[in-house]
Amino acid sequence: MLRSTSLLRKLSRPLAQAGTSVRSYQYKAPVKEMLFCSEEVHGYQEHYKTLNNLSGADASPEMVKEILEGMGKFCETELFPLNEVADREGCTWVNPTTIKTPKGFKEAYDQYVEGGWQGLSYPEKYGGSNLPMSLALMKSEIMATANWTWSMFPGLSKGAINTIMLHGEDYLRDVYLPPMVAGNWTGTMCLTEPQCGSDLAQVATMAITEDEGKSYKVSGTKIFISAGDHDFGDGAGTADGQVIHCVLARTPGAPEGTKGISLFLVPKFLVNEDGTLGELNNVGVDRIEDKMGCHGSPTCQMNFENSKGWLLGTKNQGMGHMFTFINTSRLGCAIQGSTAAELSHQGAVWYAKDRLAMRALSGKRNPGHEPEKAADPIIVHPDVRKNLLTQKAIAEGGRSMIYECAKIADKLADNEMLASEGDEAAKAAAEEADDDMGFLTPILKGFLTEKGVDAAHLGVQVYGGHGYIKQNKMEQISRDVRIGAIWEGTTGIQGLDLLGRKIFLQKLKPLNKHCSKVRAFCWDAIMNAQTSAIRNHAIKVLMLSFEWQYLTARIGLMAKDDREAVGSASVDYLMFAGYTHMAYHWLQMEIAAEKGLAAGTGDKEFYDAKVQTSNFYFESMLPQTKTLAKTMLSPTDTVMKMNVSQFETA
Amino acid sequence: MLRSTSLLRKLSRPLAQAGTSVRSYQYKAPVKEMLFCSEEVHGYQEHYKTLNNLSGADASPEMVKEILEGMGKFCETELFPLNEVADREGCTWVNPTTIKTPKGFKEAYDQYVEGGWQGLSYPEKYGGSNLPMSLALMKSEIMATANWTWSMFPGLSKGAINTIMLHGEDYLRDVYLPPMVAGNWTGTMCLTEPQCGSDLAQVATMAITEDEGKSYKVSGTKIFISAGDHDFGDGAGTADGQVIHCVLARTPGAPEGTKGISLFLVPKFLVNEDGTLGELNNVGVDRIEDKMGCHGSPTCQMNFENSKGWLLGTKNQGMGHMFTFINTSRLGCAIQGSTAAELSHQGAVWYAKDRLAMRALSGKRNPGHEPEKAADPIIVHPDVRKNLLTQKAIAEGGRSMIYECAKIADKLADNEMLASEGDEAAKAAAEEADDDMGFLTPILKGFLTEKGVDAAHLGVQVYGGHGYIKQNKMEQISRDVRIGAIWEGTTGIQGLDLLGRKIFLQKLKPLNKHCSKVRAFCWDAIMNAQTSAIRNHAIKVLMLSFEWQYLTARIGLMAKDDREAVGSASVDYLMFAGYTHMAYHWLQMEIAAEKGLAAGTGDKEFYDAKVQTSNFYFESMLPQTKTLAKTMLSPTDTVMKMNVSQFETA
Repeated sequence: MLRSTSLLRKLSRPLAQAGTSVRSYQYKAPVKEMLFCSEEVHGYQEHYKTLNNLSGADASPEMVKEILEGMGKFCETELFPLNEVADREGCTWVNPTTIKTPKGFKEAYDQYVEGGWQGLSYPEKYGGSNLPMSLALMKSEIMATANWTWSMFPGLSKGAINTIMLHGEDYLRDVYLPPMVAGNWTGTMCLTEPQCGSDLAQVATMAITEDEGKSYKVSGTKIFISAGDHDFGDGAGTADGQVIHCVLARTPGAPEGTKGISLFLVPKFLVNEDGTLGELNNVGVDRIEDKMGCHGSPTCQMNFENSKGWLLGTKNQGMGHMFTFINTSRLGCAIQGSTAAELSHQGAVWYAKDRLAMRALSGKRNPGHEPEKAADPIIVHPDVRKNLLTQKAIAEGGRSMIYECAKIADKLADNEMLASEGDEAAKAAAEEADDDMGFLTPILKGFLTEKGVDAAHLGVQVYGGHGYIKQNKMEQISRDVRIGAIWEGTTGIQGLDLLGRKIFLQKLKPLNKHCSKVRAFCWDAIMNAQTSAIRNHAIKVLMLSFEWQYLTARIGLMAKDDREAVGSASVDYLMFAGYTHMAYHWLQMEIAAEKGLAAGTGDKEFYDAKVQTSNFYFESMLPQTKTLAKTMLSPTDTVMKMNVSQFETA
Repeated sequence: MLRSTSLLRKLSRPLAQAGTSVRSYQYKAPVKEMLFCSEEVHGYQEHYKTLNNLSGADASPEMVKEILEGMGKFCETELFPLNEVADREGCTWVNPTTIKTPKGFKEAYDQYVEGGWQGLSYPEKYGGSNLPMSLALMKSEIMATANWTWSMFPGLSKGAINTIMLHGEDYLRDVYLPPMVAGNWTGTMCLTEPQCGSDLAQVATMAITEDEGKSYKVSGTKIFISAGDHDFGDGAGTADGQVIHCVLARTPGAPEGTKGISLFLVPKFLVNEDGTLGELNNVGVDRIEDKMGCHGSPTCQMNFENSKGWLLGTKNQGMGHMFTFINTSRLGCAIQGSTAAELSHQGAVWYAKDRLAMRALSGKRNPGHEPEKAADPIIVHPDVRKNLLTQKAIAEGGRSMIYECAKIADKLADNEMLASEGDEAAKAAAEEADDDMGFLTPILKGFLTEKGVDAAHLGVQVYGGHGYIKQNKMEQISRDVRIGAIWEGTTGIQGLDLLGRKIFLQKLKPLNKHCSKVRAFCWDAIMNAQTSAIRNHAIKVLMLSFEWQYLTARIGLMAKDDREAVGSASVDYLMFAGYTHMAYHWLQMEIAAEKGLAAGTGDKEFYDAKVQTSNFYFESMLPQTKTLAKTMLSPTDTVMKMNVSQFETA
């Protein structure tokens, strides 16, 4: 249960004293931006009222604001200062069951558990606050921006909780969920093995039963297991670092490939009848990886050796069970992209206002020009502004794209609960929400992570040489976000998922549905446009929705004769979809901002900035679709004809 | 002087035993590629014959091959294994005059000095081999690919040598050049200060004379000084780490801004009359930076305190003197970009052939399909191939762009030597070469460094999660090349240099000259095309040369009413120029390859790969110009209208 506001306030006591004495930017939680996006763009309050099982009605505007501001304060004062420390210090492998996390991580996590934050969107019967998932996601967004690697520990746990909640039998849920929802136990997802990541058909971990399926002995090696172990246990409550692993494995005689994979719950410690921890379950960390970034998160090679496990869901349906979870974790990656853009933007704006170099070309007419100084702050220069605006467009456009998905996730969760009680209409509604989510997920994951990498690149660029220096806290963002475009399926995998699995395998249905919805919105915007810019932008989005369908058809025709056409087009296609979808969201934000301006009651400068950024997006970023529309149709011969030996350097 | 081939062979004895035991790719010097590009595309042998002062005629095909293969072996066996070690170990600040470089760096440098490599392209009277600069650049290319940070030590020294050679009085050249050309002394360029980098008008380091200009006392702080100090001295010959700094500083009463900056030679140790080293010259390193990458190179904050220095060139002309040097060092950055693409490509191809995941969609028709294995190597998948081909197109296209510039640099150096003997025609020829070089430099620097960053990104992408792990030697390339788009002027500065300084300030002359030359080449290619693809590509390049001029005119017109139009367009303009220029080079390579195929004597597979890669470039990469042609003309209002406060997160 979410504790009272006094606890929220407690979260602001100073903890981390580490960090450099160098003057540099400070993270600020963008609460106003988040409320604009959730309320004025996406009508969350109205949406909450449509929820049945989740206590959306409890999420009053005041409570939402209090939650965001409470989390904001915690993240500004606790998590953000730990972000650089974590990068410098990293994690340490002490022994197979002890991983040391960076200084301050455990204490911050204790506060998080104490505040009841982990259970925000989980059912009351497991100790949660039963609030909508979308609200938990806004909370996670702030943590992810302030300190990505710290946020991975609760994030991975949520993945495991969701999986157990959906697929675990009651006897598993009753034992494992309450301490996980409280945050005292954490969780992981164990998929990848040394020989396979994207291609899980090759999974070799084995699960053998000796009691007719009541339990299993799981043996194998899993790699790249984030938060695979840690030292959060002691102070966090009931357990010394209990970790619940959700593990993909094969049973003897199971069909080959993905159709023979099952999902198992394997705890680090066995659990006694009374809920206390028993002995170690032969689960150990062989090593942690030395990585480009994300040093605060231990990336573990996990070793399972006859470790006791229990089946989650149906035997041989493990891949399917994973997929219901994978959408959520891919949405988490999308958040990684947009929050990296947000943090890098904040850092870059701070510097661009501070750093002096050369004079504005248009002199005193230039906003930002400061004649009394030795030179103007670099924010006067158009190239610097373009970098900042690009970051802003990605951070805010990405937020809007994510908040739309979060609404769908609320509906999905709500209807799944009703459906589990036998409501057929709810079952259909849940399936529809799942399809909508499935269509949008690869777009958000693929596009926003790549654009997050771009945005972090631009932030470094604004700092010049100083961006390359660690203590200025810009290059770390680049390194940390880099994994976003890789894990949970690379950009290439997202492209195939979108075009192959979500569009062609489903005979274009999700695409056509989406485009119809977008067009209805655009027609309405065109007819009721408050400004000519809105009309203009709505027409652009409308035309792009037609072009999107046209390009899909073209690729479909190519693919009839040439099976490589889909793979060859897929990444450019995914990026086309991303730019187009972000345009639809900037249109929505622009309309909301113009509404705010017309009402005349809000912050004029704030709304005007939204309109300006939308203009920038449509003029300077969206034209990327021109190139993509061309390159996705490139003849596959230019890609496939080379022999393998011809790729090599002579 | 370049030593005999027995010394070249000596360079291959095993040195560095450090490194991981993990199976990973090995660097291979692309000698065949380099010879194709220099000979068959750019006709270096013919070009050498046109040189007067440089002993181009000595650079016979056999000698060139021997030099490249000798350097290749040295780099494959010595420098490349040190590359990962250097990243892990970094440099250590011991005290203000002692910087410890990574293990093996000094020993490798000793071998380099022993082989006479540093003097390859310098005049015999200073102990050099007097070979063309273009040949030295090919040598540097191999070192830069194998181990970028190690190559920075000799690279920075060359910058200092060039500066002293061009602007130093004889009494300075005679003392400093011989040990620098031998490699026993190294050199640096000291420009940036804490308060200024791009805007050198703010330089505050002071130089005061007490003997009417015979010498100066230089005081000030310089930052970001690569190779500012090191521990190469002992074994390298005559000196214990002598470093010669070329320092920008002001004299008392000098005009404000860039017109009051002079250039000084300031040695770390004073030099005795007999050439031996005297006492320390109050030059010290205050600290070294902790950076994103390039850990093998110490980035020093240098402190000069009444350090004795001598004027280089003319008083108050320091910025001009620097600019003659800056083109060369920016060309060095371009090499950083294309060599990062090369190295990352080699690593990615190795992995793509090795890693198994999923089956080729078009099954056995697919080049690379291996039915006897558990899955196909990922090189069968179109998306992976596109990543590899993009890297290949950048690495090889970049090489060709650089080799063209190297020819111009040869002509420049050759004619400068003749001009210094009073030859007026040579003086005009040198000026023309300088203009040509000045026009191409920002395009190469800006475009190839950004594309190098992209290529390294794709290399990581091919490895998936394994690309994020340090020991696989891919993410380091991303971190190391990242500085390329920043130092020696960020991409933003390159854009302004090209469009503002090199095009509009010179009333379009260099652009028009370049486009005429390109069009003459294209017409010829169209008329004599060996294949329809060549005709097609030549027409595309031709049309782009027109579009380039048209876009320039459009921006010029916009700039009449709006001074921000140039700055706003400049980076997109620069990238348009880069893509267009690379297309011109792929056309040249394709024509050379088709010639090779028609002759029927060479390696058919090799030539065919060139044709394929050119096709890929024209179909999948060049269409980027479509977007850029649009975005560079975006209304400046969308960039300039926001108030400073509106950039901030609310």
